[in-house]
Amino acid sequence: MSELRYSSLNKEWVIIATDRAKRPEDFKYGKGVPPADSREKCPFCPGHESKTPPEVFCLREKGTAPNTSGWRVRVIPNQFPALTPEGNHKRHPINDIYMSMDGFGAHEVIVENPDHDQNLTTMDIRQVEEVFSVYRERYIALSADRRYESVILFKNNGPGAGTSLSHPHSQIIAMPVTPLMLRHRLDVAREYFDNYGDCIYCHMLEKERETKDRLVLESDNFVVIELFASFFAFETAVYPKWHASNFGAITPEQCRELAGVMQKLLIKLKRALDNPDYNIMVASAPAHEQDLEYYHWFIKIVPRISKAAGFELGSGVFINTVVPEAAAKYLRDA
Amino acid sequence: MSELRYSSLNKEWVIIATDRAKRPEDFKYGKGVPPADSREKCPFCPGHESKTPPEVFCLREKGTAPNTSGWRVRVIPNQFPALTPEGNHKRHPINDIYMSMDGFGAHEVIVENPDHDQNLTTMDIRQVEEVFSVYRERYIALSADRRYESVILFKNNGPGAGTSLSHPHSQIIAMPVTPLMLRHRLDVAREYFDNYGDCIYCHMLEKERETKDRLVLESDNFVVIELFASFFAFETAVYPKWHASNFGAITPEQCRELAGVMQKLLIKLKRALDNPDYNIMVASAPAHEQDLEYYHWFIKIVPRISKAAGFELGSGVFINTVVPEAAAKYLRDA
Repeated sequence: MSELRYSSLNKEWVIIATDRAKRPEDFKYGKGVPPADSREKCPFCPGHESKTPPEVFCLREKGTAPNTSGWRVRVIPNQFPALTPEGNHKRHPINDIYMSMDGFGAHEVIVENPDHDQNLTTMDIRQVEEVFSVYRERYIALSADRRYESVILFKNNGPGAGTSLSHPHSQIIAMPVTPLMLRHRLDVAREYFDNYGDCIYCHMLEKERETKDRLVLESDNFVVIELFASFFAFETAVYPKWHASNFGAITPEQCRELAGVMQKLLIKLKRALDNPDYNIMVASAPAHEQDLEYYHWFIKIVPRISKAAGFELGSGVFINTVVPEAAAKYLRDA
Repeated sequence: MSELRYSSLNKEWVIIATDRAKRPEDFKYGKGVPPADSREKCPFCPGHESKTPPEVFCLREKGTAPNTSGWRVRVIPNQFPALTPEGNHKRHPINDIYMSMDGFGAHEVIVENPDHDQNLTTMDIRQVEEVFSVYRERYIALSADRRYESVILFKNNGPGAGTSLSHPHSQIIAMPVTPLMLRHRLDVAREYFDNYGDCIYCHMLEKERETKDRLVLESDNFVVIELFASFFAFETAVYPKWHASNFGAITPEQCRELAGVMQKLLIKLKRALDNPDYNIMVASAPAHEQDLEYYHWFIKIVPRISKAAGFELGSGVFINTVVPEAAAKYLRDA
């Protein structure tokens, strides 16, 4: 079982994932070379269902049995989980500055498509909509579990973005704690709301839609922008136009529209940046803080074309070498 | 000139480095391939002094002229600076949630050795001591400049750590702002001091030296440990045993001792992890907050053997796949 550790030096939790731990010696040769990823060995390809833990949710053809082929989107527990549902959220003091906790939570893989070679830019739009409907489904299910405080949905696309398996998949981790970064964003937004009586994100979106300088694309209910002070080159954010603090509150129709917006955006990024590796992250309020007046969920997409180096790790200040307005124009035209 | 941008959404500053900016199109092929780095073209090799801006500080042989060969350690302004000394720290409101500021500051390169093929693990210890004496020198000089609020000294070693030039060098950036990450650490340490009347780092070091579980090595005045809740596998920290909040307060003798400790540690990491790419960062109190009772400077070394993926970017919570106690034992034995 893995372990969550907390240090009073910075008030942050870290996952020490001993379940996926290699021995320290194994790192000698582990310089980021992804393992061979042939279809014969791929645990996510149809016919290989027995190579994964049993599915927890599935969209599959009528009449096909669980854990056999015939699925369209399949959700399974991660075989090398960062967190597992055993244990509880009880803190164990190590001394007066350190605490530890069971590596308690959930870690699921959403296999997006039976076809090893598809991805969110090449799938039929109906398939992308199904992927997003499963995001919504699992997000709601894990958020409803009172043992988990925050649910993080993310996708690592390509070795530069931290994945070693090329079969299209996303992941979702439910944690028994609220990350400091999220709490900071919530505190900032709540302070703004207390002062101005408004959601700072709704206000920001109004300004962005006025100036249009950083606007990438818009649909009826979503707006895609480059952030004014983005950490990474071409870091892009998708916001719902209506006020909502939790991703799980999205309706099935809105979720279908979101799938279309995301596919459009990913195709633009692919064209503009020559098929970059990228991460997608859904940023939502904590699981049991629903309908907040002051917070606004969003999705971030970070193409991995720049690298955090010593300055960024040492200061937390990022150097972005592409002006967000130029990036927005470039993506609009792509 | 580059630009500093601030967003009220997260209260963080970002450097938009238009001086090093490529056009967005250039990123199409910029997938992290380092440029060719032959000695003939290396701007840091002796005889090529005219390829860099004029030196701002130098340890050189008697009788040799500035900006010619004959130097041992050479400090020059970065040719592609993130920040430059033109401008001022005046904030320009863009609207009620965004601000910008001149990309105002200093960005220097410390060329550590005339020999293209040396590094901190292969240099003679006298040479490493000279490098650290120059760290001290430039740190004190830039910290004394009232226009700069924080000074970040760092080293990117290898392409995986964000450098494209292999000639051994470090960098130092002076900023007109205090990074949020540093202010958070200061706030946490000050709260502890207010409550317990003690430096939380001194207290932590006392505990670590008692249990020895995460101890890597010790000298008379320094202690090297794996952090209890470290973000990255084999992330290692060097602390002075005496209480001091600012790196610049180090004496020349202590600085020589530190050079020896750092070389020992880097040799251990090289052996243990098969010559990994790594970053070094000096974390010190803000330039004009000297002699703080509650803060403690330190140096962090992060071997780049793990990668921040979507979960880390989306939550700020890191997954570390090597137990710090196991990493410490492995380094002690290396």
